[in-house]
Amino acid sequence: MGESVLFEFLHREMVTRVHSQAGDTEHGKCISTLEGMGFRAGQGLIERFTKEAPAFKDELDVMKFICKEFWTNLFRKQIDNLRTNHQGTYVLQDNRFRLLTPVSNGKQYLEEAPKFLAFTCGLVRGALSNLGIDSTVTAEVSVMPACKFHIIMQKP
Amino acid sequence: MGESVLFEFLHREMVTRVHSQAGDTEHGKCISTLEGMGFRAGQGLIERFTKEAPAFKDELDVMKFICKEFWTNLFRKQIDNLRTNHQGTYVLQDNRFRLLTPVSNGKQYLEEAPKFLAFTCGLVRGALSNLGIDSTVTAEVSVMPACKFHIIMQKP
Repeated sequence: MGESVLFEFLHREMVTRVHSQAGDTEHGKCISTLEGMGFRAGQGLIERFTKEAPAFKDELDVMKFICKEFWTNLFRKQIDNLRTNHQGTYVLQDNRFRLLTPVSNGKQYLEEAPKFLAFTCGLVRGALSNLGIDSTVTAEVSVMPACKFHIIMQKP
Repeated sequence: MGESVLFEFLHREMVTRVHSQAGDTEHGKCISTLEGMGFRAGQGLIERFTKEAPAFKDELDVMKFICKEFWTNLFRKQIDNLRTNHQGTYVLQDNRFRLLTPVSNGKQYLEEAPKFLAFTCGLVRGALSNLGIDSTVTAEVSVMPACKFHIIMQKP
């Protein structure tokens, strides 16, 4: 448990620091900084995780890997629900997302949520990028600590 | 393994970012920023780790806890060697410190080492602080990825 807690504490420190540096008016800059850090981490992580994984059949196969192996490796649980329109859009729902639990007490923190999700959006985008898929990844929170990650793949 | 790798990647991203922001001339500022982040994380972590731990008999008892339980929880191994002068100075040696392994290839990286150790110095200082012990913690590297943490306790 210690290692994952260590990550959570470091993540919180990083969000706080990046946020305080960006200032109240530059919310977008803060989000994009965190997303960029996640992107590079995601690229490195997926490389390690797919070393012994079989080749992927298709896009959906990649997404299933992200929802199961990738998520479990990082967050100790699978994505709870995966939906797709079969046209390159995927919605991954995590009913109890670990990085939201420190801020999940009460509705007033809903506006705090995006900055705690930006790094993870980057993680997913970086992982997909390394697997040859360009995408945009955004997050949505309605009831904490549940959240949805929306992934839209860019058609080449 | 995923969670600890996630921490390592995030740690590296954070070091890179803080370092690039501080600029080449402000090495000290970079170190102190990272140390401060570690300090706050260390305070939070030790609180969780000592919830079910018995009360400590003395200072040495606290240090043994840091070397065993605290280190194992965070870095998957114990401190390899603990020395003390029995006058408030302790030296903790880790022969293969995890956060140094990404930079441990070759002597030319020795000067890079301090910024990869600052967060951990802070972790230890924060943990001790929460246990009522004020200290200064510094790190020393001679042969990577081995390192020593020097802890000097402030007498009240």
